[in-house]
Amino acid sequence: MTDSHALPSWPLESSEPMEEYTMFSVRRDRVRDPEDGSVHQYDIAESADAVVVLAFAPSEELVLVEQFRHGVRQLCLEAPAGIVDEGEEPVAAGLRELREETGFAAERGEIVGILALNPSWQTTRVHVLLVRDAGPQEEKELDSGEATRVRCLPLGEVNDRVRRGDIQSAVTLAALKLLDLQA
Amino acid sequence: MTDSHALPSWPLESSEPMEEYTMFSVRRDRVRDPEDGSVHQYDIAESADAVVVLAFAPSEELVLVEQFRHGVRQLCLEAPAGIVDEGEEPVAAGLRELREETGFAAERGEIVGILALNPSWQTTRVHVLLVRDAGPQEEKELDSGEATRVRCLPLGEVNDRVRRGDIQSAVTLAALKLLDLQA
Repeated sequence: MTDSHALPSWPLESSEPMEEYTMFSVRRDRVRDPEDGSVHQYDIAESADAVVVLAFAPSEELVLVEQFRHGVRQLCLEAPAGIVDEGEEPVAAGLRELREETGFAAERGEIVGILALNPSWQTTRVHVLLVRDAGPQEEKELDSGEATRVRCLPLGEVNDRVRRGDIQSAVTLAALKLLDLQA
Repeated sequence: MTDSHALPSWPLESSEPMEEYTMFSVRRDRVRDPEDGSVHQYDIAESADAVVVLAFAPSEELVLVEQFRHGVRQLCLEAPAGIVDEGEEPVAAGLRELREETGFAAERGEIVGILALNPSWQTTRVHVLLVRDAGPQEEKELDSGEATRVRCLPLGEVNDRVRRGDIQSAVTLAALKLLDLQA
């Protein structure tokens, strides 16, 4: 069962920068409803592309990090992730974040998908990098204000923790779904 | 392999409301690094709890919606989702959003997990509602400015579309991961 009509795009009437914050900025878009011509206003949070990394250590365990997260104000267990710097390739950004946050070095990885974090009011896209052969582990290279605890877990235990609600990051779970769909 | 030290929480020094936008507001938190006592500033986007719905139609197909999304400015195929209104139960909110956006009515559902949309700088949590027996389909009850095209697809085709990148919403993929982990 599918509605038969195709949906039209909404023309953008204007887009105005509002404020800059530490990790995002806000713009105000006015868009026209193609059905009735009415104009609606949407505030959009813009942030840079990101990358999340599913990396397997030499032990064949998945490399996760635990860190205090300021959005939810608690410790979170997640896949390593970070921002793709301007001009940087997503694969290089993911390998850099993996090395900085966990100390695991790898020379290659494969982008297995792109996520839309919140298509309703955010621009952010998250590249999903799969690293099948990370390691060996070296020293972490954390930014100021970053502290991570590295946890390497077999995939079965990762799934148990997702089921129990110990891993809640939408991006980490979405990346695990893409991993499951790899041949 | 696991780092042996436990991580401490970061004490909140101050929290100041900044701006209100259409779908979120921003606050500025100052927090103290428990390791070295330095104070760091983080701007946090606050938005209401949300709910995403994985509902199976009488055909046993999964109910998805296609709609124009203003964050990414394109048509997106996703699981139905929306805001939990103040005082509303997440199950009731999910059943309401399902009915409004797709016309599929259901009397019950089960919360199978909670997602953190972006624990780095957002507060939003997304409840994941599983509805095993939706239907029959009635009229949609869309808000002004909403237009949806309902797509009911067998789970195997949903997975094919995720693999091909036709479904990119992190929350939809994360919900599908939780569905896979149900007994």
